[in-house]
Amino acid sequence: MGCVQSFRELCDRPKKTNVRISLPAVCIVWETAMIILFGIFIRYDDNSDSHWIDDRKETNKSDMENEFYFRYPSFQDVHVMIFVGFGFLMTFLKRYSFGAVGFNFLIAAFGLQWALLMQGWFGSLGPDGKIRIGVESLINADFCVASCLIAYGAVLGKVSAVQLMVMTLFGITLFAVEEHIIIHIIHAKDAGGSMVIHTFGAYYGLFISWMLYRPNLNQSSRLQCSVYHSDVFAMIGTLFLWMFWPSFNSAIADHGDGQHRAAINTYLALASTVLTTVAMSSLFQKHGKLDMVHIQNSTLAGGVAVGTAAEFMLMPYGSLIVGFCCGIISTLGYIYLTPFMEKYLKIQDTCGIHNLHAMPGVIGGIVGAITAAAATESVYGVEGLKETFDFVGDMSPTKQGGYQAAALCVAICFGVGGGILVGCVLRLPIWGDPADDSCFDDEHYWELPQDEESTQPVLQYNNHMRNKDVIETNFNMQQT
Amino acid sequence: MGCVQSFRELCDRPKKTNVRISLPAVCIVWETAMIILFGIFIRYDDNSDSHWIDDRKETNKSDMENEFYFRYPSFQDVHVMIFVGFGFLMTFLKRYSFGAVGFNFLIAAFGLQWALLMQGWFGSLGPDGKIRIGVESLINADFCVASCLIAYGAVLGKVSAVQLMVMTLFGITLFAVEEHIIIHIIHAKDAGGSMVIHTFGAYYGLFISWMLYRPNLNQSSRLQCSVYHSDVFAMIGTLFLWMFWPSFNSAIADHGDGQHRAAINTYLALASTVLTTVAMSSLFQKHGKLDMVHIQNSTLAGGVAVGTAAEFMLMPYGSLIVGFCCGIISTLGYIYLTPFMEKYLKIQDTCGIHNLHAMPGVIGGIVGAITAAAATESVYGVEGLKETFDFVGDMSPTKQGGYQAAALCVAICFGVGGGILVGCVLRLPIWGDPADDSCFDDEHYWELPQDEESTQPVLQYNNHMRNKDVIETNFNMQQT
Amino acid sequence: MGCVQSFRELCDRPKKTNVRISLPAVCIVWETAMIILFGIFIRYDDNSDSHWIDDRKETNKSDMENEFYFRYPSFQDVHVMIFVGFGFLMTFLKRYSFGAVGFNFLIAAFGLQWALLMQGWFGSLGPDGKIRIGVESLINADFCVASCLIAYGAVLGKVSAVQLMVMTLFGITLFAVEEHIIIHIIHAKDAGGSMVIHTFGAYYGLFISWMLYRPNLNQSSRLQCSVYHSDVFAMIGTLFLWMFWPSFNSAIADHGDGQHRAAINTYLALASTVLTTVAMSSLFQKHGKLDMVHIQNSTLAGGVAVGTAAEFMLMPYGSLIVGFCCGIISTLGYIYLTPFMEKYLKIQDTCGIHNLHAMPGVIGGIVGAITAAAATESVYGVEGLKETFDFVGDMSPTKQGGYQAAALCVAICFGVGGGILVGCVLRLPIWGDPADDSCFDDEHYWELPQDEESTQPVLQYNNHMRNKDVIETNFNMQQT
Repeated sequence: MGCVQSFRELCDRPKKTNVRISLPAVCIVWETAMIILFGIFIRYDDNSDSHWIDDRKETNKSDMENEFYFRYPSFQDVHVMIFVGFGFLMTFLKRYSFGAVGFNFLIAAFGLQWALLMQGWFGSLGPDGKIRIGVESLINADFCVASCLIAYGAVLGKVSAVQLMVMTLFGITLFAVEEHIIIHIIHAKDAGGSMVIHTFGAYYGLFISWMLYRPNLNQSSRLQCSVYHSDVFAMIGTLFLWMFWPSFNSAIADHGDGQHRAAINTYLALASTVLTTVAMSSLFQKHGKLDMVHIQNSTLAGGVAVGTAAEFMLMPYGSLIVGFCCGIISTLGYIYLTPFMEKYLKIQDTCGIHNLHAMPGVIGGIVGAITAAAATESVYGVEGLKETFDFVGDMSPTKQGGYQAAALCVAICFGVGGGILVGCVLRLPIWGDPADDSCFDDEHYWELPQDEESTQPVLQYNNHMRNKDVIETNFNMQQT
Repeated sequence: MGCVQSFRELCDRPKKTNVRISLPAVCIVWETAMIILFGIFIRYDDNSDSHWIDDRKETNKSDMENEFYFRYPSFQDVHVMIFVGFGFLMTFLKRYSFGAVGFNFLIAAFGLQWALLMQGWFGSLGPDGKIRIGVESLINADFCVASCLIAYGAVLGKVSAVQLMVMTLFGITLFAVEEHIIIHIIHAKDAGGSMVIHTFGAYYGLFISWMLYRPNLNQSSRLQCSVYHSDVFAMIGTLFLWMFWPSFNSAIADHGDGQHRAAINTYLALASTVLTTVAMSSLFQKHGKLDMVHIQNSTLAGGVAVGTAAEFMLMPYGSLIVGFCCGIISTLGYIYLTPFMEKYLKIQDTCGIHNLHAMPGVIGGIVGAITAAAATESVYGVEGLKETFDFVGDMSPTKQGGYQAAALCVAICFGVGGGILVGCVLRLPIWGDPADDSCFDDEHYWELPQDEESTQPVLQYNNHMRNKDVIETNFNMQQT
Repeated sequence: MGCVQSFRELCDRPKKTNVRISLPAVCIVWETAMIILFGIFIRYDDNSDSHWIDDRKETNKSDMENEFYFRYPSFQDVHVMIFVGFGFLMTFLKRYSFGAVGFNFLIAAFGLQWALLMQGWFGSLGPDGKIRIGVESLINADFCVASCLIAYGAVLGKVSAVQLMVMTLFGITLFAVEEHIIIHIIHAKDAGGSMVIHTFGAYYGLFISWMLYRPNLNQSSRLQCSVYHSDVFAMIGTLFLWMFWPSFNSAIADHGDGQHRAAINTYLALASTVLTTVAMSSLFQKHGKLDMVHIQNSTLAGGVAVGTAAEFMLMPYGSLIVGFCCGIISTLGYIYLTPFMEKYLKIQDTCGIHNLHAMPGVIGGIVGAITAAAATESVYGVEGLKETFDFVGDMSPTKQGGYQAAALCVAICFGVGGGILVGCVLRLPIWGDPADDSCFDDEHYWELPQDEESTQPVLQYNNHMRNKDVIETNFNMQQT
């Protein structure tokens, strides 16, 4: 801790938010690198290459058997979650909507290119040294980006665009390694990414936030709140995440019953979460009023927690139970844990991702492990069991359960370790992040339109007081 | 009426909007009940169970033949309509956007669970006493919820969340019975639910509103209007409903040409409605200005009215005619009928669901009956006629037309009867609804963010008066 | 120019914005005409007619082979782009959000009906004189409408609804002819419509705007800017366009690998554009702040530019390069070209469609020509080459490249010529367009809600001064 402390002091120089050189430089250099690397490595896969017609004729397939038709509708739903869902969910702050939706856009667009490369190198590098991409690769790239957007939630309003780009570059690199270990080495199943995406992403973000702890953040507290319409904007994000979560969890599940079951389980878990979230939110507030923060966030916890087990035979009531618990835990997290973490653990978590992604993600990993361990041939069918878990050799459900638990640990370790590491890098005083008294403010990174207030009163007076002396009125206003 | 009157007086005690005990209690108890009932009754169907692989191998099916791929894209569109469409359509009120989108969210999430059970018990209870659910069940559950959200439109801003939950519980129960009678006993066809969903839902809501008549509602009139941005939010709802309505009407239509035709008919009817709505809105306003209320609502009437006949051979021009008429009728309804109903019939209809759902729904039922009665083998083809109407035995188009008309009557009766019954229950003074002078106000049920006005002037002064003494300015402000 | 000048003077009579007679008349007359023409000409195609069952049984097809399942998810995505994407993209003006989203709605709904007819007459008129429509026709109608919505971007805030209707009527007529020449006579390929839709639409709009030049438009400059929340609304449009652009470019591409490849290419081009847009926006602003105008618009340029070549073997890195260049060019266009065009060329381009559609569209046409000319059998495969370009007879890639270039010229000519022609018509002083000092203002065409400012201070005082004399406060307010 002493070492960390001194490093912190080293980095605490006066802040300069001008990113006029660094941001364009980073964008241009990295995009150029992407073009070169894509030129060397990335090609269309069998289903998207124009040679597909030969393949199709040989195997006497219908056009419909193209992977595109199995996955594309789900892909588009996931795409909406990434850009509109995550983007608008973070617009709740009164003066950080541009940053929320705009930086989300930037890092997602960058991240998905890097993800295609990283996931390709680890997952699907062919014998000719080429990565073959198709619609499933696009979904996986979007998933990979999701983990970095989750991490963004923890540091929302406190970092610059350049920091976010660096955070995304490292985050996606770590993600690809972690995913490779979990999916291809441990052979755990994680269709909806409770562990791979949510647990990793959340701890990654939380520990970056811990490294970037700002003792004087209360100087920005006047801006760390919402206004009426910004809360409504955030509901757009919430609802698109909520509605399309069944597609998220089923997007890369097995064709047929796998995708079908994953969608049903997620649909049910989310519905259940809404009710317990509302119950807790009302119960723990004076006068029983609901808190928009809970409705915007905790209602999604069920989708996170059901991710790993979504394609298993979790049973409809099982999904409801998972959602039930997560709604309660997540809402209580917002009420008790977030203030506690900020005060005692020095983790400032702007969007409360610990409650929305970390805890439900861990629960999801555990539920997945238990469900896998409890799988039987009588429930799944002989073929169904093999198909669902991709069993090879002497693999058994019990063993699979253990592997799932191991996978969860890997995800947490990568999140914590990666977060501390990248947090160190981001403390360097070269990234253009805002000072403690100017966080949560778009003004430092965006050309803002004139304030409504400075023009509309004049407008209003023009409308309603045409007979009076407008200049005098304005003069009076400045006096009051 | 005397009895109703005295019952009214009995119920008119002073209102208390604190729902801190009742709302959490209702949510937790009902969600627990859902878990138990799901545990007893609900299982995956053939297409979503892991045994599907055996079935598929036996019948030599492709993965693509899984029901999931026929219905899932439509399901997601319907899902967006339910949560974003209905939710945002009701955000037009200046201070009830949280309630509109939040309570919509709550009752939809609750309703769909209860709908899965109710529709299962009536429709698909297997010989083993289990309900088998798949993607079509999810669509049907969303449909069922839609009828309750329509009813919510009539009482928007005047009821508490607990009342809405009760209203939804009864509404879905009634819906399931009504649907069972119409679809399985009368054998009427209603793919888009003009009768089953819209007519029933609208009359259910209107008669609840009649039972809950508030003579002094004008005390809340300062809040029963929109502001500029709330109207733009409402357009999000309008457009997502409008765009995805073809999916709504085609979601559970017959595979292949049935779904295809339903989508085309709905697309055309809606396009036509927009033009006549604009025409009427402009014609009946001073200076020819358009009214946002009409654009937000009446443009959707064509989709409602074409619901029943969408999968029939209505012909493209037929769809246009239906849309043409409904745009006119619905807009005139907003201009003349809604004020009339409020003044003379004592039905206070916040969103004007009578114009958007009730009248177009009835028209849709009539169009369906006529189209069915006029069906001929020359138009449909011998096989096509049987397939489209699922004729068994000596059924004929003329008979089918009569049955369709009967179904419409059933829907209206259930709506009116159910509305009166449930309205009685909701008058009990235990539900925490707001007093007449505090309707349409989020303040009673939501933790609201600080008013923009109370913080932004400070911001503005900081920006524009940096050379002056900011502290003095703030001091002065606090004095006023 | 002299002739144009005198015609201009002729038309510059005082403006009257009352459209109470003209707008309803146009809507009703045209919709009636649509019904009659649809009655005469439009029928369901094989896949949406109830006779399909016979066809299916004969050919032993699966239900899944219905064209509906190949195209419907893409159609819905395109539909969202047309109504929410284009509509909300234009809501950025502080007081023209109703007009942006509302008139967009009106002309799209009208345009798609007229497009079905026009495209049918030119493209698919059967031997029996009937037009057969299916889901692909709906997509094509939406595409056709897109070109007119692009044109709307140039004249946003400066025209009346009646003018827009006229502009759409002519625009769609011209589009259908232009498309027929490009696709069916020249046999150029243009799946994503870089030339057919974007280039044509943009020049059509720009030259209408040139004809409608308003020398005193600066009198409305107080309203030609955004406010904070209107910029957030516009991001909804941006993101839905951005996310669903892969569906736009792949919607009518060849089944299977064609659609698959088009989606991948578009996804990559768009991702690349975001990075260079951000780079340029930051680099050319003081202090490196980002400009929302660029983020809202230029990020989409890559999707436009990759349209023609999307289904070719452009290669993933090729897509990135196209996006890279377009992000730079489009952003620089906003910074330098738009002011230049307004000052020296007298083209007032409200949304900057020259930067978002015209330049990227032309680039797209050139990229398409080069890619086609460079196609080889080694890259595409023997069958693949024929399939991708629909080669018949002695057609060769080099020739195809030349035809593609010719098609680009046709698109530009139709845009410029059509724009000048229709611009002349729209200068007639009968259309109810606003005067130069009242552009960009919803007040002339919409019933606006009371200003927030005039009601909310009262609200605020009520909340915060309950201990004081509220009546006195209000009295004081009315005095000032």
